[in-house]
Amino acid sequence: MTVNEKISRIRARMAEGGIDAVIIPSADPHMSEYVSDHWKTRAYVSGFSGSAGTFVITREMSGLWTDGRYYVQAGHELEGSEAVLFRASDAGCPTPSGYLAENLPEGSTVGLNGRLFSAAELKKMRGGFSKKGIRVDIAVDYANELWETDGRPADVFTEAWQLDTCYTGQSAAEKLSALREKLSALSADAIVVSKLDNIAWLFNIRANDVENNPVVIAYAYAGPEEAVLFTDQGRIPAALAAALAEEGVALRGYEEIYDFLARTEEKARVLCDEKELNSALLTAVEENAALTAVPGEDPIFMLKACKNEVENRNTANAYRKDGCALAEFYGWLFEELEKGTPLTEYACSEKLGEFRRAQPLNRGDSFGAIVAYRANAAMMHYAPKAEGSAPLAKEGMLLIDSGGQYLDGTTDTTRTFALGPINETERHDFTITLKGSIALMEAVFKYGASGSQLDVLSRQYFWREGLDYRCGTGHGVGFMLNVHEGPQGFGSPVKLEEGMVVTVEPGVYREGEHGIRTENVVRVVKGEMTEYGQMMRFENFTLVPIDVNCLDLSLLSDSEIMWLNRYHERVRAEISPLVSERARKWLEKYTAPVSRG
Amino acid sequence: MTVNEKISRIRARMAEGGIDAVIIPSADPHMSEYVSDHWKTRAYVSGFSGSAGTFVITREMSGLWTDGRYYVQAGHELEGSEAVLFRASDAGCPTPSGYLAENLPEGSTVGLNGRLFSAAELKKMRGGFSKKGIRVDIAVDYANELWETDGRPADVFTEAWQLDTCYTGQSAAEKLSALREKLSALSADAIVVSKLDNIAWLFNIRANDVENNPVVIAYAYAGPEEAVLFTDQGRIPAALAAALAEEGVALRGYEEIYDFLARTEEKARVLCDEKELNSALLTAVEENAALTAVPGEDPIFMLKACKNEVENRNTANAYRKDGCALAEFYGWLFEELEKGTPLTEYACSEKLGEFRRAQPLNRGDSFGAIVAYRANAAMMHYAPKAEGSAPLAKEGMLLIDSGGQYLDGTTDTTRTFALGPINETERHDFTITLKGSIALMEAVFKYGASGSQLDVLSRQYFWREGLDYRCGTGHGVGFMLNVHEGPQGFGSPVKLEEGMVVTVEPGVYREGEHGIRTENVVRVVKGEMTEYGQMMRFENFTLVPIDVNCLDLSLLSDSEIMWLNRYHERVRAEISPLVSERARKWLEKYTAPVSRG
Repeated sequence: MTVNEKISRIRARMAEGGIDAVIIPSADPHMSEYVSDHWKTRAYVSGFSGSAGTFVITREMSGLWTDGRYYVQAGHELEGSEAVLFRASDAGCPTPSGYLAENLPEGSTVGLNGRLFSAAELKKMRGGFSKKGIRVDIAVDYANELWETDGRPADVFTEAWQLDTCYTGQSAAEKLSALREKLSALSADAIVVSKLDNIAWLFNIRANDVENNPVVIAYAYAGPEEAVLFTDQGRIPAALAAALAEEGVALRGYEEIYDFLARTEEKARVLCDEKELNSALLTAVEENAALTAVPGEDPIFMLKACKNEVENRNTANAYRKDGCALAEFYGWLFEELEKGTPLTEYACSEKLGEFRRAQPLNRGDSFGAIVAYRANAAMMHYAPKAEGSAPLAKEGMLLIDSGGQYLDGTTDTTRTFALGPINETERHDFTITLKGSIALMEAVFKYGASGSQLDVLSRQYFWREGLDYRCGTGHGVGFMLNVHEGPQGFGSPVKLEEGMVVTVEPGVYREGEHGIRTENVVRVVKGEMTEYGQMMRFENFTLVPIDVNCLDLSLLSDSEIMWLNRYHERVRAEISPLVSERARKWLEKYTAPVSRG
Repeated sequence: MTVNEKISRIRARMAEGGIDAVIIPSADPHMSEYVSDHWKTRAYVSGFSGSAGTFVITREMSGLWTDGRYYVQAGHELEGSEAVLFRASDAGCPTPSGYLAENLPEGSTVGLNGRLFSAAELKKMRGGFSKKGIRVDIAVDYANELWETDGRPADVFTEAWQLDTCYTGQSAAEKLSALREKLSALSADAIVVSKLDNIAWLFNIRANDVENNPVVIAYAYAGPEEAVLFTDQGRIPAALAAALAEEGVALRGYEEIYDFLARTEEKARVLCDEKELNSALLTAVEENAALTAVPGEDPIFMLKACKNEVENRNTANAYRKDGCALAEFYGWLFEELEKGTPLTEYACSEKLGEFRRAQPLNRGDSFGAIVAYRANAAMMHYAPKAEGSAPLAKEGMLLIDSGGQYLDGTTDTTRTFALGPINETERHDFTITLKGSIALMEAVFKYGASGSQLDVLSRQYFWREGLDYRCGTGHGVGFMLNVHEGPQGFGSPVKLEEGMVVTVEPGVYREGEHGIRTENVVRVVKGEMTEYGQMMRFENFTLVPIDVNCLDLSLLSDSEIMWLNRYHERVRAEISPLVSERARKWLEKYTAPVSRG
């Protein structure tokens, strides 16, 4: 079925049901950023495969909303369909519901699946619609009904397993006790959690339900005495069930959460994070007289974001291994290029996956690798497909953004390498990207500063030349968990706390020409304590050479060149002893000191 | 009466009235930052003379809350009284009402004058108090009752005058029409305004009711057809009344606003800025059935903040004249020092005022000049008094922060000069302050960025060395109006718009040692428009040499030295032709190019 045919079928159902518009979000019932195949409804209907986007169908119009990372990709993928692209990061772009409030006639009805919207979203949407008397029917899911007749994958509950405290540094019982302390400070004594990585973190459990995100599809309730994990029972091995029971965690079926919240008679003040809970869960709490909903942010976000010392030591190991995998890969790549072997982006992506899986404790990739040659790299989240990915040649630049899941940590690294001669614009853009990286990685800041306050330290070099990248300079990273993790990040107003892990990844994206990004991952550490306050800084995890062949050294300051040489010395010292002869030779060449002289 | 005696008298009245705590804010009924002498109640009771602070008296405790600018000064001024200093900028410091909510017993009563609190403040305070059943009595003003028996100055209504459109670039009628357009976009057709500089801006009127702030103590109501200015009628000359009438502005008595709002029968949706309106005004609107209160930000803030081209040209003139006044002053100062004339901070302050008043169109100072020698400069808002100000010597540094009111603009400039030898810490601190200034003044940013996002460009140089200053790097500046003007500034989340005027004033304050600040004023202008967006930058107004004798040139980059030499060349070229021989000679010496060579 083409996208236009799918839209027509949905419109036919809308006409029957008296629905004037449907909203198809990227979400699952857990408000996940990356969803299992079962919930890739928006991608199924619209043909747009990026991770973030909302599809809207009215009687006359259909449109896809997505953010700046995906403009180029969405433009390509929407070609041939009637759908219009709404550039959501641009000033003046309405939200999907804002657009509907503006364009639907008075008294219209908007249909959606209420479990795919957070309580806060639904509340806000209803507020915006109220002026024009637009109703919301939360029991409409024509897109999934259509998909059910067209090969929709079933929800998958893979075997769950426990991540050992030698990796996490804290048992589930200890985490529950820390959580209960935070709840008590918020005048609550229980919490409902639907956010999958928060549940995985809390119980130290993992599975393979969602590609690259080792979460366990589940809900959780932590009461004053007992915690309950709601998930498919068949996927919990007996030993894991026993271990969880010992830590005070009972098991129930996945869908039973709704019934449990509706019927429990144990009185509790239940923290409900309205931004994260799907609206049906909040409704269940609100309608049970024994429960009182206490609005507030789920404290697991901050507990999970501030990595402990065990996690930090493990993460350093994971990045060392990832550095080995990348050194092996680049050693191989440049040798094959030299030999004249025909290579494609996709072949590189496969080969890189092999090198990563060969590393100890690896459990696959942390996201679909971006291997993007020349102009393809201008698409920030381009992923090569098996068929028709670009062949490489000994010229221009190759951007690779990839990461692994290891029992001892989640990695995320981007490097851009010259495969041969590059032009002056590429050289210039690569150099300012490095300046932006160094400025942020080397920043010292007073405790209390947020990522969004520091972002300009990197972005200044781009703005100065009329350039910009359409996202924050970096995001939080999970621990053997989701590669995108909130609340910290360089686009975020949340204070940077000791132990938070964030990426630093400025870049230049020139549509139709080239894309450049350099991404290191850092953690927040305490610096000097002075009479003016507690100073903080970053410590770098990533150990992969930065291609000095792409640099215009005249644009770097002495201290930037010193930084680069020191960094390369460290990469060589830490990685060389652990890799093959080929990788070692490659490292030697690519970590040689540079000077303007 | 000593501060402790005043506190005792107020406590006696509290005991009689059954009041457990009183809150004495810095405010007047217009939520002004700087208030007329009639409303300096907090200063009268507490002895603390800074512009920002709240005094609280309970049965057992009294305390002054003030922000980081004033910690040192407040510490000195509270000496000898029972009052405790609450450092409001520090992490974890409770707000005054938070403190009371925490420490008062259940069912207590807090007394305050409701006209001195914004509607939003009062609402928030009541919310915080509700958990413990703490009541607020808004008709309690024991502090002013005491002051009335102890020489409280009367409210002053000085003669008002109109600021010509050759200065403002826009007539009152044009401004009213622009305002009505904004109101209409906010679904309102009227507005109540109590903010004094907004009223002065709207009607192009000025007076001398408040020291250094040429506002007119008044309220305003702009309805769909007519606007009303509520102020003392005796102070409006007949010609001004006629001119206002011609622009559609009627006059009524100052206090009549309350009655007018309570009784008007003309139906209107009245925009009420709850952060700015005193709670009694909002209550009056809400209780009149003909009026509907529409909550929202007073659009005058943004209209006033984005200066037009006429204001910009005038402001440039004002800064040129201010540069002349400062060149005359420093020429005089260094000559007198050379001669060995005994000088004090206060004498300098007086002399500087004379030089400013000698400039065309000057109407006095824009704030009480800070003339602070050596350790006194560590107090960010130190002002020398006639008696006992520090004598100057030919060593150490003198910080002068001062500004003038001119018909063609309001100025605000800080310079720190060495009067003789300085130590290495002073030299170092002066140099990083300059680095911080240049980085922000030379910033290029994409439209949409706020001041608080750019702040770190300056502050990074301080944080890197464990230093910090306890305020944003700069504030908005009015036009022949208040020297502090919102909403823009480097501590503000408001987008920087074309025409906004802000100070850039990083500094180092070492208690007991020295204080250094360099302050230039810039306006926001459009830069290049690229495919990545509209780039913006700053243009500098200030034309006063920066003391190169205080620099450690080894800490400056080549481009910073180039900036400094270009700046000094411009200062010399623009100011030299306009000043006395003595000032010209001084300028020549202090604007000579420097090099590391």
